[in-house]
Amino acid sequence: MPRFDHPTETVFTWAAPSLKFGLGALAEIGEDLRALGVTHALVLTDPGVAASGVPDRVAHAVKAAGLGVDVYDNVGVEPTDKSIEEAVAHARTGPWDGFVAVGGGSAMDTAKAVNLLTSHDGTLMDFIAPPIGGGRVPDGKLKPLVAVPTTAGTGSEATSICVVDLLDLHLKAGISHPRLRPQLAVVDPLTTLSVPPQVTAASGMDVLTHAAESYTALSFDARPAFPDASARAAFCGANPISDVWCEKAMELVGTHLRRAVMNGNDLDARYGMAYASAVTGMGFGNAGTHIPHANAYPIAGAVEDYRAEGYPEMPMVPHGQAVASTAMAAFRYTFPADPKRHLRAAELVGGRPVDPDEGAEALPRVLRELMRDIGMPNGISAFGYGEPHLDTLVAGTMKQSRQLSVVPRPLTTEAAGRIFRESLRNW
Amino acid sequence: MPRFDHPTETVFTWAAPSLKFGLGALAEIGEDLRALGVTHALVLTDPGVAASGVPDRVAHAVKAAGLGVDVYDNVGVEPTDKSIEEAVAHARTGPWDGFVAVGGGSAMDTAKAVNLLTSHDGTLMDFIAPPIGGGRVPDGKLKPLVAVPTTAGTGSEATSICVVDLLDLHLKAGISHPRLRPQLAVVDPLTTLSVPPQVTAASGMDVLTHAAESYTALSFDARPAFPDASARAAFCGANPISDVWCEKAMELVGTHLRRAVMNGNDLDARYGMAYASAVTGMGFGNAGTHIPHANAYPIAGAVEDYRAEGYPEMPMVPHGQAVASTAMAAFRYTFPADPKRHLRAAELVGGRPVDPDEGAEALPRVLRELMRDIGMPNGISAFGYGEPHLDTLVAGTMKQSRQLSVVPRPLTTEAAGRIFRESLRNW
Repeated sequence: MPRFDHPTETVFTWAAPSLKFGLGALAEIGEDLRALGVTHALVLTDPGVAASGVPDRVAHAVKAAGLGVDVYDNVGVEPTDKSIEEAVAHARTGPWDGFVAVGGGSAMDTAKAVNLLTSHDGTLMDFIAPPIGGGRVPDGKLKPLVAVPTTAGTGSEATSICVVDLLDLHLKAGISHPRLRPQLAVVDPLTTLSVPPQVTAASGMDVLTHAAESYTALSFDARPAFPDASARAAFCGANPISDVWCEKAMELVGTHLRRAVMNGNDLDARYGMAYASAVTGMGFGNAGTHIPHANAYPIAGAVEDYRAEGYPEMPMVPHGQAVASTAMAAFRYTFPADPKRHLRAAELVGGRPVDPDEGAEALPRVLRELMRDIGMPNGISAFGYGEPHLDTLVAGTMKQSRQLSVVPRPLTTEAAGRIFRESLRNW
Repeated sequence: MPRFDHPTETVFTWAAPSLKFGLGALAEIGEDLRALGVTHALVLTDPGVAASGVPDRVAHAVKAAGLGVDVYDNVGVEPTDKSIEEAVAHARTGPWDGFVAVGGGSAMDTAKAVNLLTSHDGTLMDFIAPPIGGGRVPDGKLKPLVAVPTTAGTGSEATSICVVDLLDLHLKAGISHPRLRPQLAVVDPLTTLSVPPQVTAASGMDVLTHAAESYTALSFDARPAFPDASARAAFCGANPISDVWCEKAMELVGTHLRRAVMNGNDLDARYGMAYASAVTGMGFGNAGTHIPHANAYPIAGAVEDYRAEGYPEMPMVPHGQAVASTAMAAFRYTFPADPKRHLRAAELVGGRPVDPDEGAEALPRVLRELMRDIGMPNGISAFGYGEPHLDTLVAGTMKQSRQLSVVPRPLTTEAAGRIFRESLRNW
């Protein structure tokens, strides 16, 4: 709706780490670290990724370049305040002057937090965004951080945000600051070949919802003007740069995700998904996600006993499953904010023209077809949620101020409740 | 042609400065400099840009943020070794801990050299790429450099290269290193409103040839493999990221350049050109240019008495005029290397479908139509060159090893001569 009561924004910002992309790109990581001034690196990874052998290959390449290197392989999957505090406690004891995160969003987000808390005193909660945390702004210099994403998922390698599951509060929250961004992302599609089908599917849905949300997010120039540069949000809303990459990512996922899930050795599909994931962060990581990502935090945070195939044997909703689970209902709700963009998204993901008369149902339909094909869980009831949980979930969503600031259609508590209710089952 | 005699490359790299883009973006530059740790900035600009008042506005904004600031407005247009040495001598005398380049490629390239030579001892020639210069690699830390492009042209704000006219050698050459890249580009389309028509035209043709060359450059994976990371070229050849942005830039220039030249106050067209220029460096500045840019160096370096409207009263060929002057013949020559890309480029610049039967002539035709509409000089004879100069020009081209490493079709001395001869007159 038009906003006549205040001046709107005219400026957007964009930033990304350097990127090295390609088959075998990992081989040079020791030289890359040396160019960043690192002499002794700590590799951070989780047990599942460690079992793939990739972190050992990284360590070997670092050593071969004449640098010191150690591996910490106890990163928590879907990291919690507890798992991050353990990693920080370990990292504070050693001589490391640079970090390498190997894995998915879990490893990268943990490495960002470790980098922050080995360069600053204080606790994780001090830095978490308000209203949940203290919102402290990092003012010290962080160490070099190189990200090696191995799941073709989050795009966390290129963003300035770290997401953490707060165990006692039963919700997820984030720390966001430009200094958290890795200096370099090394993306080697060969590292994704061993990712299990259900992890491939969830990670791919994370890329897809991230793109579709950024594409339909409130435009940067529809937001109220920021009073000064320091108040400017890191996530600026849809803008001409993010638009280009969102379209590309949706098209790439539509083309490659089914193949990557159904045949993990389809290198062409793995390459396409690794590329889609790289552009997530590099291309549109600064735009900002909205409702599905806001919903994903309480969905993951309030889980009781859901266990996901391909993931560690513990109660957890993988991030990609969480964001996908309410995407259909969310885009049905945001459709009136920009019908043309929602229809275009449906065309790109679906790979063929869409009848405009299909309206608000087009994008949800295309998402449903894809999610069924790749075996995604059917809505939030699959995670154990029912009518009695909706108030808790809605309350968690309404706390996600970063996402709510770029929703294309204002989200009321009542609308959020309707979206969760529609998402109990998606088909 | 297929290369069976050695392994080819599998990796591409990409890097860009952070970007702040939009109407009024300049207002925050003092805060941006402070965030980069600058306390006393030197603004570098040329007399023509200084007359526009933009550098004074920048200085005012810096002062308003509580930082020290001085302006050096004696940057040479199409900078020479002499003009750069003067700027360096000045900059070595002051307390400045950061630089702001305001203007076109001249100001930005000068600022890169000033930043390099106030952080390192030695001379400009020590750092220029071989075989012309010593090829010394910067190993010290440079100061923060913020670029404020005001011409919607070179994309120099985002690249790691500095081009200089070597007066005694009568040719242009470059210094290229990641540390030369500005940390931040602030692009405010309002600063381009006062750019004269012929400067708008030449700058726009620079964006366009840069995009068309990067799009048709040798693909990164057709190049011989680099022995190690340090040998890896900064300009890696065409790659999936640069392709996306080259297409976008060609389309934007095709849509907006005529309007920006014919009505300098057409803000929509100025916005489109500023955006096209921003993506030059951000999106495809790492791919690499080829024949037209290689030719432009001797064309500019060997000039005797050509004077360009809208530019300072001195013998010079503006960079955008130089690169445009042989583009038609160059793309006619490179057409067989990838007909589909050349036809696609013609469609994007021309804004309508192209008959594939038009073949090698399609892109030259579209360029000719555009260049005639915006009043570009008709070929290198307009600069005073004739048959007797061709050997000198060819010799200068064959020294441009950076460009020659990504030509899509090997360039022989004889072929270079043919391209210059065809380019004496373009219509």
